Amino acid sequence: MHVVVNAAMSADGKLSSRRREQLAISGDEDFARVDRLRAKSDAVVVGVGTVLADDPHLTVKDDALRERRRDDGRPASPARVVVDSIGRTPTDAAVLDDAATTYLCLSEAAPVDRRLALAEHAELLTAGDDRVDLLRAFAALQEQGLERLMVEGGGELIFSLFEAGLVDELRTFVGPTLIGGRDAPTLADGEGFVAAFPALELEAVDRLDDGVLLTWQTDDR
Amino acid sequence: MHVVVNAAMSADGKLSSRRREQLAISGDEDFARVDRLRAKSDAVVVGVGTVLADDPHLTVKDDALRERRRDDGRPASPARVVVDSIGRTPTDAAVLDDAATTYLCLSEAAPVDRRLALAEHAELLTAGDDRVDLLRAFAALQEQGLERLMVEGGGELIFSLFEAGLVDELRTFVGPTLIGGRDAPTLADGEGFVAAFPALELEAVDRLDDGVLLTWQTDDR
Repeated sequence: MHVVVNAAMSADGKLSSRRREQLAISGDEDFARVDRLRAKSDAVVVGVGTVLADDPHLTVKDDALRERRRDDGRPASPARVVVDSIGRTPTDAAVLDDAATTYLCLSEAAPVDRRLALAEHAELLTAGDDRVDLLRAFAALQEQGLERLMVEGGGELIFSLFEAGLVDELRTFVGPTLIGGRDAPTLADGEGFVAAFPALELEAVDRLDDGVLLTWQTDDR
Repeated sequence: MHVVVNAAMSADGKLSSRRREQLAISGDEDFARVDRLRAKSDAVVVGVGTVLADDPHLTVKDDALRERRRDDGRPASPARVVVDSIGRTPTDAAVLDDAATTYLCLSEAAPVDRRLALAEHAELLTAGDDRVDLLRAFAALQEQGLERLMVEGGGELIFSLFEAGLVDELRTFVGPTLIGGRDAPTLADGEGFVAAFPALELEAVDRLDDGVLLTWQTDDR
């Protein structure tokens, strides 16, 4: 399995303002790059916070890329995966439409009524007691044939994946704006490390739109 | 007046962990670059939070750079400026030693006993009622002949300076590590913007140590 985390952040490392509204940090070149990365992936993964804040669709947008996937005998878009410990994904969320297969990774703490409602729209995987056990959940995804995973946020999930040692590569578009805010969501939130910080290796630096794309490799790869 | 904000941050935009301990995010090349930037400045500015967390000295370290400043008829190190609304700088702080002139920017809310204690160690400037009025404080610094200012953090001061429209240039070294943490200090904290985000222009991208130095210009310049 190979896990790439991809996100756009402001020059000060924020994914959004403290209001958590979706912001256009990057531009057309970066959108096209993200679409190509999705097209190369078996699954696109987000945390439920991102679903609740942005209601993303997470499908491949470019027709030629969709066509090429079909020609290769694959679905037009990769599978979608939502990490959602207690089953908060709304049943009318865009990720639950029929444009692609969707997996919901739940924990044992997800209530039965939520499971019943969500089971009509997605494949349910359960791992972990109060929170999703990401190692077990990702192993279950691998058993489904999902080898190349792209993670699109948010900061809580990204931190948890680094904590679990599941990240192979981190790609951040750093955009030409400053957001600020001690309560604004950042690229990696959660509890945070206080020692044994994950070491990264800077693989590539590419100017893109009016910002820069930084590609980092981890020791976990 | 020309104001450069300079800081080292992790790949996820953090200045430190949630414990606020000083971390070595950059390396020798970046230290030398920061020293050269200090040597070119008339004053180095920090917020009191940085003084309390790191107790920095803020002087020019390289002997040749100090010598060159003396040859130009300037003090060996630039002046030091602490933005400190209520006068929390400890009287034994490293920035208050006699290695350079130090200005403390206070607000009217700084208690008289703190003023009396600090006046023995620094030049006191007062601007603003409860918090330092940065526009007035920086105008007062300019009257003292301080034209080229370098701001070294922390995130609260950096956000306030962007809010006041006082930043001309932002230089961030992005280092090869991930810190994480929703409570870890970031490059720009404070309340944060929710609209009218400051636009930046990417002036230069330079690989340095094991990370990358991003130089951004602002519209305020």
